[in-house]
Amino acid sequence: MQMTDLIAKKRDGGALSTEEIQFMIRGYTEGSIPDYQMSAMCMAIVWRGMDDREILDLTMAMMHSGETLDLSPIRGVKADKHSTGGVGDKTSLILCPMVAACGVKIAKMSGRGLGHTGGTIDKLESFPGFVTGISEERFFDNVNRIGIAIAGQTADLVPADKKLYALRDVTGTVPAIPLIVSSIMSKKLASGADVIVLDVKCGSGAFMKTPEQAAELARGLTRVGRLAGKKCAAVITDMDEPLGLAVGNALEVKEAISVLRGETKGELLELCLTLGSCILTEAGFAADDAEARAKLLSVIDDGSALKKLAELVEGQYGDSRAVYDVSLLPDAAVKREVPSDRAGFVRRIEAEKVGLVSMHLGGGRVTKESEIDLAVGVMLRKKVGDRVEPGESLGVIHASSEQKAAEAAELLRQCYTLSDEPVEKPPFIKGIIR
Amino acid sequence: MQMTDLIAKKRDGGALSTEEIQFMIRGYTEGSIPDYQMSAMCMAIVWRGMDDREILDLTMAMMHSGETLDLSPIRGVKADKHSTGGVGDKTSLILCPMVAACGVKIAKMSGRGLGHTGGTIDKLESFPGFVTGISEERFFDNVNRIGIAIAGQTADLVPADKKLYALRDVTGTVPAIPLIVSSIMSKKLASGADVIVLDVKCGSGAFMKTPEQAAELARGLTRVGRLAGKKCAAVITDMDEPLGLAVGNALEVKEAISVLRGETKGELLELCLTLGSCILTEAGFAADDAEARAKLLSVIDDGSALKKLAELVEGQYGDSRAVYDVSLLPDAAVKREVPSDRAGFVRRIEAEKVGLVSMHLGGGRVTKESEIDLAVGVMLRKKVGDRVEPGESLGVIHASSEQKAAEAAELLRQCYTLSDEPVEKPPFIKGIIR
Repeated sequence: MQMTDLIAKKRDGGALSTEEIQFMIRGYTEGSIPDYQMSAMCMAIVWRGMDDREILDLTMAMMHSGETLDLSPIRGVKADKHSTGGVGDKTSLILCPMVAACGVKIAKMSGRGLGHTGGTIDKLESFPGFVTGISEERFFDNVNRIGIAIAGQTADLVPADKKLYALRDVTGTVPAIPLIVSSIMSKKLASGADVIVLDVKCGSGAFMKTPEQAAELARGLTRVGRLAGKKCAAVITDMDEPLGLAVGNALEVKEAISVLRGETKGELLELCLTLGSCILTEAGFAADDAEARAKLLSVIDDGSALKKLAELVEGQYGDSRAVYDVSLLPDAAVKREVPSDRAGFVRRIEAEKVGLVSMHLGGGRVTKESEIDLAVGVMLRKKVGDRVEPGESLGVIHASSEQKAAEAAELLRQCYTLSDEPVEKPPFIKGIIR
Repeated sequence: MQMTDLIAKKRDGGALSTEEIQFMIRGYTEGSIPDYQMSAMCMAIVWRGMDDREILDLTMAMMHSGETLDLSPIRGVKADKHSTGGVGDKTSLILCPMVAACGVKIAKMSGRGLGHTGGTIDKLESFPGFVTGISEERFFDNVNRIGIAIAGQTADLVPADKKLYALRDVTGTVPAIPLIVSSIMSKKLASGADVIVLDVKCGSGAFMKTPEQAAELARGLTRVGRLAGKKCAAVITDMDEPLGLAVGNALEVKEAISVLRGETKGELLELCLTLGSCILTEAGFAADDAEARAKLLSVIDDGSALKKLAELVEGQYGDSRAVYDVSLLPDAAVKREVPSDRAGFVRRIEAEKVGLVSMHLGGGRVTKESEIDLAVGVMLRKKVGDRVEPGESLGVIHASSEQKAAEAAELLRQCYTLSDEPVEKPPFIKGIIR
């Protein structure tokens, strides 16, 4: 088998066989197929696409390029959630305890943040003492005992994706549904859950700019998940502006706790109820969405979801008192309001730019090796559709110094576009794919 | 400027600017743009194509990646001819002396053969003592004095093409009109001629399988040539079977001499008259094709074309007596007829396979470093449309040993497909693009 022939086959619109896809991924992972052939193949895939059978084969071949997690020591139904990435996305911190409090097991591998998006693992480290690199034994034990564990992704999970993603990033071959689906789903399948829900972001701050593109990706993800024997659902949500109000690690944890305490409603709670309903119904824990939502709201009302977060933190050596007393979480030295210089209605808040403000403050990673400041970030006071008076604050900068705060304030102001006319807020949840 | 952005632009169907194309070719030639980015770009070009301005820019950028030949020391109109490559193609050996005998200057750089196709330079080395690596001074002097010189291509002509072609060859990105046109025309333009005629082969033995594909390539080549200020024409010719009867270096020289002596007519002469007419009319040496053909036939009739070949050989230190006495050319030790095992009409002779028979005999290069045997090859006795009786010879193998001859005879037989019904020979010249 020759890689050149496989490239020509895809270039001419053909479908690659299972054996050809396995040969390609094995060879590329081992290094016998060079980058320059793989990048030409990726561009041919951007051009010609792949059918469902090819995408499934690609996903499985990538999954088998490294270790896979066997969750069979865990009793009960295991669920996992994936987001395609957004700014201010603290959903996992809320959803996972809620679902675990309802009895579905959460054995989650999660990544660190890079660039303008944060990672769940980083956020959890806001709890003093929290350990993401727990042993496999403790990971399984925690899930069996308290129903939830969230650990950092091990190095050997899907090495093909690490190599391929780095190549795609510099060869203009990121935007192709088959490549995105296989990248996401190979990691999800390697993580071993029975139920997988996907939060597909759409809008200016997301990779998929339109609801149509997002729906196409969501359908691709769920189809492959189901073909691989998993229960799958996807929710398409707005990422034209940051999710919720907090952007920055400890700030997002505080907002998540506020939702779990029942103090914060709105889009963030709605998203967690929607994703959670998908999980509970797919897992067989609720007959329909109405029953699922009632269960999910009850674990907020009775405090058991918040307690589940405390158990998660304690189970991974963190200080769980911080769940009930957020003053124990990291707090920035400087807080600075960002007054608006004019009146109007918020038309746009550029999510990606807000993420960059947080990164500029030290809250995000520039390279994989960067140390991050967990305390810093942005708390938005105004969101799309809100009325703003002159001098009224758009948000609060949490910074380590006055200088950083002043710079970030100017950057945050540039994230906002105001209009004289009232602005209607678009629907936050744009679709559910089951 | 970032190569990733240029790849994305072409991927999304955009046109690259002149500066972007120059940046890309300069960077790739120098090595600052890696193979894996260039191969993704090539696949995006296969997909999206390029407009004429882009192809011209690409051609010029490639041309300027190395040395260019300044033919201004040569007086008069300089012509060059290029063939997209075929089996048994000894056209240059006939056409160049004919045209030079009519007064148009031929200052030609020519390549060596690789794989199943032969190179003009190799064929000329059949003349004892012939030197292809003559000095630039002698090259110019010969063209001014006798009107013709054919030298081996120098190493520094269009280095971008050498690097890019090697990459395209292993990444499934050879078949793209913009890439083929810029590869061919950058070398032709770097060679400095005023008039360029192109022989675009089509059929099973050629890169372009259909007359439509060949015409598209021919139009692309001539358009870019004219945009670069050259006189240009292209002829689309059949390569479903080998051209003429001889395949192998010295054998092809003998066939060329036979045409120049007026002893062999047919498609080979017709092709040289057609290409020659294009040159003479474009060069202003004839008012129309009729006048051009009359001139070209007259230099065969009066022996001046043959004499011009002798002068070319002598000018490059070869033994010109061989032009008049072909027994002085290399001759194989073993000659073996290949009798047909059945009666019928020749339906197909697979040109590429016949080229491989010659290569198997030692007449072609497996790698760039291979030594070749100039004496060996195949003389076809039957061509498409011919009637064959059982036991009648299909062709003669010229080999260095009985064993090689026996193997080649079996291979040659497999190149032929006979049919019971009479076969009509398709037209040899399929179109002229001016």
